[in-house]
Amino acid sequence: MENVKKENFVLYGTFVYSRDKSELISYTDSYLVCTGGCSRGIFRELPEEYRDLPIRDVRGMLTVPGLIDLHIHAPQYQFRGSGMDMELLPWLEKYTFPEEERYKDPEYADKAYSMFAEELKRGATTRACIFATSHRSATLKLMEIMEETGLCTFVGKVNMDRNVPSYYLESTEDSVNETVEWLREAKKAGLSHTFPIITPRFTPSCSRELMLKLASLAEQYAVPVQSHLSENLSEVEWVKELEGDTSCYADSYVKAGIIKKGIPCIMAHCVWSGDEEQEILKDNGVFIAHSPDSNINLSSGAAPVKAYLDKGLNVGLATDVAGGSTTSMISSVRCAIQVSKLRNRLFDGDTPALSFPEAFYIATKGGGAFFGKVGSFDEGYEFDALILDDLSIPTMRADMTPEERLERFIYLGDDRQIRGKYAAGRKIL
Amino acid sequence: MENVKKENFVLYGTFVYSRDKSELISYTDSYLVCTGGCSRGIFRELPEEYRDLPIRDVRGMLTVPGLIDLHIHAPQYQFRGSGMDMELLPWLEKYTFPEEERYKDPEYADKAYSMFAEELKRGATTRACIFATSHRSATLKLMEIMEETGLCTFVGKVNMDRNVPSYYLESTEDSVNETVEWLREAKKAGLSHTFPIITPRFTPSCSRELMLKLASLAEQYAVPVQSHLSENLSEVEWVKELEGDTSCYADSYVKAGIIKKGIPCIMAHCVWSGDEEQEILKDNGVFIAHSPDSNINLSSGAAPVKAYLDKGLNVGLATDVAGGSTTSMISSVRCAIQVSKLRNRLFDGDTPALSFPEAFYIATKGGGAFFGKVGSFDEGYEFDALILDDLSIPTMRADMTPEERLERFIYLGDDRQIRGKYAAGRKIL
Repeated sequence: MENVKKENFVLYGTFVYSRDKSELISYTDSYLVCTGGCSRGIFRELPEEYRDLPIRDVRGMLTVPGLIDLHIHAPQYQFRGSGMDMELLPWLEKYTFPEEERYKDPEYADKAYSMFAEELKRGATTRACIFATSHRSATLKLMEIMEETGLCTFVGKVNMDRNVPSYYLESTEDSVNETVEWLREAKKAGLSHTFPIITPRFTPSCSRELMLKLASLAEQYAVPVQSHLSENLSEVEWVKELEGDTSCYADSYVKAGIIKKGIPCIMAHCVWSGDEEQEILKDNGVFIAHSPDSNINLSSGAAPVKAYLDKGLNVGLATDVAGGSTTSMISSVRCAIQVSKLRNRLFDGDTPALSFPEAFYIATKGGGAFFGKVGSFDEGYEFDALILDDLSIPTMRADMTPEERLERFIYLGDDRQIRGKYAAGRKIL
Repeated sequence: MENVKKENFVLYGTFVYSRDKSELISYTDSYLVCTGGCSRGIFRELPEEYRDLPIRDVRGMLTVPGLIDLHIHAPQYQFRGSGMDMELLPWLEKYTFPEEERYKDPEYADKAYSMFAEELKRGATTRACIFATSHRSATLKLMEIMEETGLCTFVGKVNMDRNVPSYYLESTEDSVNETVEWLREAKKAGLSHTFPIITPRFTPSCSRELMLKLASLAEQYAVPVQSHLSENLSEVEWVKELEGDTSCYADSYVKAGIIKKGIPCIMAHCVWSGDEEQEILKDNGVFIAHSPDSNINLSSGAAPVKAYLDKGLNVGLATDVAGGSTTSMISSVRCAIQVSKLRNRLFDGDTPALSFPEAFYIATKGGGAFFGKVGSFDEGYEFDALILDDLSIPTMRADMTPEERLERFIYLGDDRQIRGKYAAGRKIL
């Protein structure tokens, strides 16, 4: 794959990234060095040891870390922007399950997933955690397609053995066996930046027995897990009915071994997580995939993200296509701020809104931490970067700071301004 | 202006528009006739009398009414997407007033307004109600520039004689005299689709004396008025302090003659309008310019738009650049739905969220009514249309209805899909 090999090089230009959770840092007329797929830091003068590296002059552009999409459903890409007047459960029945079932056809899966991957490649996302469908071969196909893009991704074969339409239901045994087979095949596929992730859909569609077995597989194969948690009030109520022995929704995952110390875990949404649930998430280092666009589209609500950050929970950002209509993580950053402002104004004046630097943090370093040292240009971080021609968005202003330029790009920009893109040092665009 | 002349022609293709407030109507393989700048209706077979007209074949595209932006600040275009972590009043001091003051320089105004007009021309907006600055000559320049675009607009010289920084303050006398001179010059300018509108900024920056005189001018010159109302809680409090003899914010406009039967009037925002204020708006036929993107960016809140519609108030949609960050009315439609869902879920379960057809209605026929018969393809309506290549947005789906295609375009589209655009029969794009 000539087009996605790791390169050693230097960028010369203007850089902005998160100094910490609440503050940005910027450099102008500086050198950012990438070797072996990692940042070697930003320098005013290029150190002697890097002077033989090729220099790419990106002055005039704004270079920022790549955006990390912690939760997206690849098969739902095909009907994004449809049925947005519905809430979660009827929307799953009408749009999601019938579409996902189509991926039993390998030819359809190949075409549809290629479309999805092409858009992710062209956009601002450098890494993603992806739900596929329950189909083993289509999921493997998606992994191969994602590998070709050069992006770093986790991809999960979805499991579900109850409460889904019969045409899309697995037996518990089949679900486990297919998962084992998929994990073996994924291992053999020789992929370098596309990894399997155990993916029980959510408690309502997975029996305890199935989840216990999946949790064992996660430990046995040393792979992470991802699922959904406390997204929509009707879903939360349903879980209470289904899981009589649990003290909260998250407890259903704890009892099944899915949320457990030592197993890296992403839970999408956490809109309605109470104190006990938040404790569980914190104690187990669970990553919250905050999905603001999806949460408003499906009338789920608004997660108290600022409170999560202040309490030290792990928070990343996500598009959650197709609950979120767009694959654009640029839109997601903007949406996270807007939703948190409205939550603060109308619902909970005690939890402040996310600031712009905080929203950018969760979209980069916050979610990036799930992948290791990702989301920063500090020395030793994997080199994910976007080179943005933000000044092609018209304005008379000539006095903007790099931080102001980044805010403006987030509010006005889209993939048209992306002039370069790297993931772990691989040139994607 | 060769490029903006009114044409007589027929479009052959697929059409969607609002049947009424809550329902869309669509036609496929049909003929939409435009003569004299107006729609003659949609026909399955082209009537005899129109068979000599040129036919533009737009099958495969989706043709919909143009979008109407009832409230936008042209000078604020230059700093859109900046300072979004601030609320209204400090944001006015830091960004708005210093930028608006620059328009005293005619050369700056010419360049900056041309940039603004170019973006409106390329976008989905066919009509707009625009705030300029307090500068007479720059406001006239903006009117000339808008006329060139072919769009239909109202443009207002802003008035303010108190509570703004001294560098940007007018005396009451100057404010009135300059307005009179501007109205005379605008009349003489020979513009065919660009009209003046009396524009007191808002009660906090206009004395009662000034507003009374402006109201007289509105009647004398038979021009409409536009202003702001009940946007932000701190602003509402301020008006209470300033206007001791009024029963609500709107009453300050009533007492000044600005809100009055027979004077067409737009009030932007109306986020916090109580029952009495709503009665005033209804009794006087005031148009509410709902600005959802702005209302969340500046942490103002969320207007109960669905309740306003149900009560029979006039409601249109607006971007409110630069409180709203983008000139895209496509984004505004989406945002109106999202904000109303969150309002319903977190704040007021009694007021339902806007449905997609309702949001599209306010963006077309709702705001269009301020301009006359605008926002529909029914016979006799002025011909504003967008021809959208919505199917260039990737999907495997081949079974979408025209209504589903429109919803998808609103959630995923931008100006890249606009393949044609007409305002009052003039070809803009």
